[in-house]
Amino acid sequence: MSAGPTDFPKNVIRIAVDAMGGDYAPQEIVKGALEAVRLNPIEIVLVGDPETVEGELKKYAPSYPSASLLAWADEYRPEIMNTLEEGRCPLARVRVVPSEGKVFEDEHPVQALRRKPRASVAVATQMVKEGEADAMVSMGSTGASMACAALILGTLEGVERPCLGGPFLGLAPRTVVVDIGSNVDCRPSLLLNFAVMGCVFARNILSIDHPRVGLLSVGAEGAKGNRQVSRAYQLFKQSSLNFVGNVEGMDFFTGRADVIVCDGFVGNILLKFTEGLGASMADYLRRSLEGKLPSSDLESLASRVWEMNNLPKKIGGPLLGVNGAVVVGHGASNAEGVVGAIDTARKCVELKLVESIRAELSAIRS
Amino acid sequence: MSAGPTDFPKNVIRIAVDAMGGDYAPQEIVKGALEAVRLNPIEIVLVGDPETVEGELKKYAPSYPSASLLAWADEYRPEIMNTLEEGRCPLARVRVVPSEGKVFEDEHPVQALRRKPRASVAVATQMVKEGEADAMVSMGSTGASMACAALILGTLEGVERPCLGGPFLGLAPRTVVVDIGSNVDCRPSLLLNFAVMGCVFARNILSIDHPRVGLLSVGAEGAKGNRQVSRAYQLFKQSSLNFVGNVEGMDFFTGRADVIVCDGFVGNILLKFTEGLGASMADYLRRSLEGKLPSSDLESLASRVWEMNNLPKKIGGPLLGVNGAVVVGHGASNAEGVVGAIDTARKCVELKLVESIRAELSAIRS
Repeated sequence: MSAGPTDFPKNVIRIAVDAMGGDYAPQEIVKGALEAVRLNPIEIVLVGDPETVEGELKKYAPSYPSASLLAWADEYRPEIMNTLEEGRCPLARVRVVPSEGKVFEDEHPVQALRRKPRASVAVATQMVKEGEADAMVSMGSTGASMACAALILGTLEGVERPCLGGPFLGLAPRTVVVDIGSNVDCRPSLLLNFAVMGCVFARNILSIDHPRVGLLSVGAEGAKGNRQVSRAYQLFKQSSLNFVGNVEGMDFFTGRADVIVCDGFVGNILLKFTEGLGASMADYLRRSLEGKLPSSDLESLASRVWEMNNLPKKIGGPLLGVNGAVVVGHGASNAEGVVGAIDTARKCVELKLVESIRAELSAIRS
Repeated sequence: MSAGPTDFPKNVIRIAVDAMGGDYAPQEIVKGALEAVRLNPIEIVLVGDPETVEGELKKYAPSYPSASLLAWADEYRPEIMNTLEEGRCPLARVRVVPSEGKVFEDEHPVQALRRKPRASVAVATQMVKEGEADAMVSMGSTGASMACAALILGTLEGVERPCLGGPFLGLAPRTVVVDIGSNVDCRPSLLLNFAVMGCVFARNILSIDHPRVGLLSVGAEGAKGNRQVSRAYQLFKQSSLNFVGNVEGMDFFTGRADVIVCDGFVGNILLKFTEGLGASMADYLRRSLEGKLPSSDLESLASRVWEMNNLPKKIGGPLLGVNGAVVVGHGASNAEGVVGAIDTARKCVELKLVESIRAELSAIRS
């Protein structure tokens, strides 16, 4: 794979972005990537069909940055706005690397990658493998990102399957949930694996010293739950984890556990349910409070309620347990969400998340 | 079993209430039962330890009804308040039937019932079986109610296992969800069974003519999901149901399906998650809008948000597929919730839900 000439300084974080993945690709991906380089001194490699991606880039050359994104950045990231070098052209920190085809949501990821080995998500991941990028970001099929990560980068020693995890609720920003999207039909040992990675996340990213681990079930008693959870309960009890037992749906909000473990089927349903509830609640507040609050206050309240319940659309989530930094964004992300996911990738690189997980896993084994 | 002398007219709906089941039993159960007979021309049989239950009843004899419950009834049920016969003593429509012991949340329901065959939930169910009550209501262990229903009343022909279902979201009051609490580890054929009962509920209680059925999964495509759901997808596709395919977590709010089918593990987690989110959101609104809205408006908004997300605590849910009317209330119900669950039982009897399900199942078989 030729990544083209590189004239960027070595110490700058380089992020490969799958420009073809996501419901609003490539338009929103390109828009978000351009905004991301404007906000942070990073470099972006847009991986995709060169003609399409360059066509998008050209749209922004004259009028970049857009007014709406500027407004967003002003509200949310004043500290970054202040550090921006005036007059520096962000387009100089963006380049395009060609790929062929993409993996669609309805394709079987591994089969699709076999047919399309140079699909955008695969080429972007390959750049991390070859040291040409420090992290990969995709808004495309979660299964495809996971398959690429596992096949190209490989999992860390002691990790059976990578998982997606992190806080996903604005109302519970310090509760780490694993897995939220990539693994269905999990054996109990896999859930234990997720728990360990969730603890590393809690310790390294959220500075929680001895994270309390809860297993998501339908009753607090150990006997309550399906076969998967009842067996996992025994395994968790025997482990060195700070296991507080089963937790229930309401315990996302009670602070009973710092890390809540479930399989990706339940986690993904909860994630999307929360999005729907948040959107619906925001509309409800708009209707109920119309005329009772100044309209700008009301709109700001409704937006906050939407955002609190749509965290992954804003920031994506890191794939835990792989030998490289990979961030999976929400498929329905707009440019703001792309900016957020790229920023999560930047933080993962800066905080050396992969190295921390590797070290923790090694300490646990010995 | 002696149910004591009966001097009630025959055409009045009689509801047996498990006075010992629930987190706040027997206090809140007795309080709620008394309120229920005051609100509706029904009769209540309180099944429990006679001394304890009569002790509770005596508390209310002089001062009944309580001011706070009256206030609640005034707000929510004015049409019923107006129909109350002035001066009629509700205590005359309440009697106590003795039982021995109760099934606790942490007991295995079937084993516990074997040891305690005269537990409150069993005696109350037996009264329905023997035609001494038209419906049974319990706020105790869902597993115990389900076991009693299955063992004592039996399931309807064509029903493998009973399920809990109905709308559970105030923001989606016309979306029926089955199962929400009683069955974990469900085979695909069982999910199909739930779908049929959910459709009967939608048709008979919500007057939805051709209910659209969705299978809850992690992607709209048929291939997405765990083994259970992928297999069920094929079965649903071949059935005579109005099957719209997989739905996702956000589709509880998009109106894509009238009946959403999942196993009781996922359903119960969603139910309790929603409760927690609702409580947390109500607190958030109280904090964010303090001083911006008149305090009575703010409190009423926060209460509505809590209630919308805590529907089962207000009204309970019928057990579908059993040969008799059984309503399972939320374990954490207070007196208001007991009133709501009793009212749901009354409606099930009036709308002949059991007979409708029996007729639908028979029509589907032929």
